[in-house]
Amino acid sequence: MELFAVSNLPEVNEGDDLAALITEQVDLRSDDIICVASTIISKAEGRTANLDRFSPGPRARELTTALDSDIDPRFTQAVLEESVEVILESPFLLTETRFGHIGVNAGIDRSNVPDADLLLLPKSPTESAQRLHEGLPANRIIVTDTCGRPFRHGQRGVALGWAGLPPARDWRGETDRDGRELSATVENVVDELAAASNLLTGEGDDGTPVVVIRDFEWGDHGSSDAHFRDVDTDFVRQAVRGWSYA
Amino acid sequence: MELFAVSNLPEVNEGDDLAALITEQVDLRSDDIICVASTIISKAEGRTANLDRFSPGPRARELTTALDSDIDPRFTQAVLEESVEVILESPFLLTETRFGHIGVNAGIDRSNVPDADLLLLPKSPTESAQRLHEGLPANRIIVTDTCGRPFRHGQRGVALGWAGLPPARDWRGETDRDGRELSATVENVVDELAAASNLLTGEGDDGTPVVVIRDFEWGDHGSSDAHFRDVDTDFVRQAVRGWSYA
Repeated sequence: MELFAVSNLPEVNEGDDLAALITEQVDLRSDDIICVASTIISKAEGRTANLDRFSPGPRARELTTALDSDIDPRFTQAVLEESVEVILESPFLLTETRFGHIGVNAGIDRSNVPDADLLLLPKSPTESAQRLHEGLPANRIIVTDTCGRPFRHGQRGVALGWAGLPPARDWRGETDRDGRELSATVENVVDELAAASNLLTGEGDDGTPVVVIRDFEWGDHGSSDAHFRDVDTDFVRQAVRGWSYA
Repeated sequence: MELFAVSNLPEVNEGDDLAALITEQVDLRSDDIICVASTIISKAEGRTANLDRFSPGPRARELTTALDSDIDPRFTQAVLEESVEVILESPFLLTETRFGHIGVNAGIDRSNVPDADLLLLPKSPTESAQRLHEGLPANRIIVTDTCGRPFRHGQRGVALGWAGLPPARDWRGETDRDGRELSATVENVVDELAAASNLLTGEGDDGTPVVVIRDFEWGDHGSSDAHFRDVDTDFVRQAVRGWSYA
């Protein structure tokens, strides 16, 4: 398996044809996996915003006061508008976005955006991946982001959307060398591919937001469509939902 | 960056010299990163155990009753002996191991082990990595495992221990193309490398527990020694700790 970053991509602007920009820089194979950072998808889709677009409602004002920091209530309002549930209210806003991803501040980025205050995540990263899929000669696309997580320090790459491959390999029913059923059953492949691509993506002014993964083989295994957890089986999420930071 | 699995490794037994087994199968370069699944380290270190080695104490009996499943109280005792804290008691045991990793059942494996009931995680995966580091011509080693996580479905590869590289890249103080300070600040590189290697490792009877990562470049960035979160800043962990499953 080989990974390389696509170099010489220009700064992306609203309305740009990302598939065309990518194919101008790299010869893709049909079985390549293309990992595209959500930042450039958001820019192409015009998902920048200035704070004055958001009028804080009562809930945003209440949350901002409880956060007890110098957060702008218009920013809180932006987070609320991107979210379907606030899971943790304090000491930071952990929310579920409209497309099912759980992250701090609904993944809204306050860096990496010229000429605007905020960069919102794509509205539907899987639909974005499907559109790229139509325009690219490679048949597997992953839209990536970086975010933190509980228990483990630091951020890592994750998949927000995908097209042309299922998100997970399903090992259920398979056995180990001694014929015992495996305890590890579902492997989130798109998250692992996103983590791998993030090793090459970079965050700074050397940013290379598109990575090609070549010669990854799914193997003779089943697949699963699950990517985000159901709340019913997510006991950590249930615990956080009922918790108050003192 | 290139990844490949090491093929033809024999079944590993207690006392085996893993470094010798690996170098017999592959020509390593000094700047390679070697990802080794914790299963074969545990086997080489004799970390198998039968259930009858564990005598359930009062706490193990209490937890087993509360779990309300067909779990063996001796297994609960094994989990307790591997752990420093039980973070979630029900509907499953989520604990912190003695070396700081948080996982279900202290990461004890009931598959992948011949001639024994259980395979415990290595006592100190970072010390295991350091020992491998002395025996291998490659200068960067990661001990990997697979585990689940909140919010996102499925398991993915994670790093349990490492040697010869810091666990994280630190982007603090770096700026984006427009001179704004980055919002993503610490990237957990060893977890991302472990996730990448897990794409090739396999779980089943085609298991290939050693993966070589070649031509990964750290780049001109700082580093951080943090890998597991401090409880003080882990609000999700604090929430789970005080929560009861109804």
